[in-house]
Amino acid sequence: MMSQVKPAERKVRVNLGDRSYDILIGPGLIAAAGREIASRLKGRKMAVITDENVAPRYLEPLMASLGRSGIEAVSLVLPAGEKTKSFEHLIPVCDAILGARIERNDAVVALGGGVIGDLTGFAAGIVRRGSRFIQVPTSLLAQVDSSVGGKTGINSPHGKNLIGVFHQPDLVLADTDVLDSLSPREFRAGYAEVAKYGLIDKPDFFKWLEENWQAVFAGGAARIEAIAVSCQAKAEVVAADERENGMRALLNLGHTFGHALEAATEYDSSRLVHGEGVAIGMVLAHEFSARMNLASPDDARRVEAHLKAVGLPTRMDDICGHLPPAERLMEAIAQDKKVKGGKLTFILTRGIGRSFVADDVPASEVLGFLKEKHPQ
Amino acid sequence: MMSQVKPAERKVRVNLGDRSYDILIGPGLIAAAGREIASRLKGRKMAVITDENVAPRYLEPLMASLGRSGIEAVSLVLPAGEKTKSFEHLIPVCDAILGARIERNDAVVALGGGVIGDLTGFAAGIVRRGSRFIQVPTSLLAQVDSSVGGKTGINSPHGKNLIGVFHQPDLVLADTDVLDSLSPREFRAGYAEVAKYGLIDKPDFFKWLEENWQAVFAGGAARIEAIAVSCQAKAEVVAADERENGMRALLNLGHTFGHALEAATEYDSSRLVHGEGVAIGMVLAHEFSARMNLASPDDARRVEAHLKAVGLPTRMDDICGHLPPAERLMEAIAQDKKVKGGKLTFILTRGIGRSFVADDVPASEVLGFLKEKHPQ
Repeated sequence: MMSQVKPAERKVRVNLGDRSYDILIGPGLIAAAGREIASRLKGRKMAVITDENVAPRYLEPLMASLGRSGIEAVSLVLPAGEKTKSFEHLIPVCDAILGARIERNDAVVALGGGVIGDLTGFAAGIVRRGSRFIQVPTSLLAQVDSSVGGKTGINSPHGKNLIGVFHQPDLVLADTDVLDSLSPREFRAGYAEVAKYGLIDKPDFFKWLEENWQAVFAGGAARIEAIAVSCQAKAEVVAADERENGMRALLNLGHTFGHALEAATEYDSSRLVHGEGVAIGMVLAHEFSARMNLASPDDARRVEAHLKAVGLPTRMDDICGHLPPAERLMEAIAQDKKVKGGKLTFILTRGIGRSFVADDVPASEVLGFLKEKHPQ
Repeated sequence: MMSQVKPAERKVRVNLGDRSYDILIGPGLIAAAGREIASRLKGRKMAVITDENVAPRYLEPLMASLGRSGIEAVSLVLPAGEKTKSFEHLIPVCDAILGARIERNDAVVALGGGVIGDLTGFAAGIVRRGSRFIQVPTSLLAQVDSSVGGKTGINSPHGKNLIGVFHQPDLVLADTDVLDSLSPREFRAGYAEVAKYGLIDKPDFFKWLEENWQAVFAGGAARIEAIAVSCQAKAEVVAADERENGMRALLNLGHTFGHALEAATEYDSSRLVHGEGVAIGMVLAHEFSARMNLASPDDARRVEAHLKAVGLPTRMDDICGHLPPAERLMEAIAQDKKVKGGKLTFILTRGIGRSFVADDVPASEVLGFLKEKHPQ
């Protein structure tokens, strides 16, 4: 699979019965959006939701493409940034969709990164108790993770992503040309999620990334291959466990620690973005697994070496500015949603590509570990 | 089934695979709520949402019952009335649920009529992408209709119930004692939905109601029987078509006209409440079906005679104050959500108990009919 990379467009199918859908991955897909949508959906009215960063570059080409295929579209441009994932912005998005008279065969289109995708997907999921929805992800993170699988939502004062629904898209168009305009830091952050798929259960893919990451960063066929493998990996997990009753939780590898660090840095993206939190979190998950005698410390070192090589932060000390003490990080972990009856659920690992869901991890062990890694 | 009514508690099962649940119908269920919930759910934390009208009478008995079964509960009291079905009130409900640290086995409890049930169910459906949910309906309308079947939501400036999700409850406790405190007008409004189940596909039940409605209004075994038959009817439709892709639309008999009248009276409950709109709408649906040569005019007259006998309004002229012209009513119908690709979907009938979904009703016919019924 990985030995022969192809330069052309790739298609990944997410198998969910009558809610199955395609993810198209390749260059020029925004310009081809109208054609791809019109060939799959009967509706000819769309509402496109995007943000101020994405709109100047991609909104007009997308609207023009829709127009060429006879699709009548309205657009709404929101402020960029995590704060947009709020009721404050959800309400006008719902109003815009209803105002555009989107009916059952029409669709809502998210053009942007994870914030726009999560917010717009949530709006599509609740307008008329569920409207058709198309993802046009414009960040690597969104292309390999958030645009696939139907998790949508907004943040609450009580925590991130605490309000939302499962609502699958009808189509995902991952235009790989847009990745050329990402900052290196943003590309790296998305790459953390690519590496994650190798660490969950694809040790060969992780090895391939160790050897080919420069080509993935450079663009072209290797990048498309890495995105396609990532989407395929996520599609398989989602098809097996759409609503996270079991193995889907594996996708949270690195995320429990990562979310706690995001909360500890008050979601200040100048200090830490999601993918960076996941990178540090994955190293911590491997180190904690080694500490619990589940995995070899060599694996943790290998994970850290690779993420460091691509330029990702790998330790809590890599985060600039003051971090709260281990006890406060522990509180953030306890407030995270992956808690059942007071016990902590963690994704741990027996080695690279051998992660598993542990739902009875003692909080005292985690706290002891955090104190070691982050002495005050 | 209908010949021998029983005075004791009744149970109706809604069969939806691993989301199946019980509806308990009978006296004293608020006082028994803690026991019924604790025997079914593992969680011991609840958030109870109610309104200012219901709270003085039933909140304390419910909280006491939960407490006796070791359930720790918090409560939130909202303003009464349709305006509460809004984002403005949804947000504090979500905050209250999250603030109570409701986890996966815990539950959100709606104590009230349709407004509280729809709003609370929606909040339960989106907090942590779906939390457990218990309905304790306190109006006849909520007991026989809105608390069963998982439709939840709020209103939008664009129309009623346009924002929401499908989210099934885990248990419905219909305490029939609470119906004794309803005003006659409110009881009648709920009765319109009871009669609806007969008109959809249970001609024998409609006949039984014609003969026994005084006993149903008086309370006791006949009332419990009527509620149980209604819940059973709704449960069967919901089990067959949970997400309204087909026959569930039959439950909207009378609702397309009814919603238009509710909109035309600006949801002013002093002029028209939902069940009254449905009563007029059901008569109109039968008359329109007769006009289309689908049903006998005698059936329309029989429907009107029964609804009139119980004291419900049956004609547009029964609504006090000015009604907008037929063209404006038609606009409200077109804006209703039961529209596909511009065509009008209506529930029509071939006679009492023989309703069906017609998805290609010409707007011109409907407009002509409305002009006849409501000349300016």
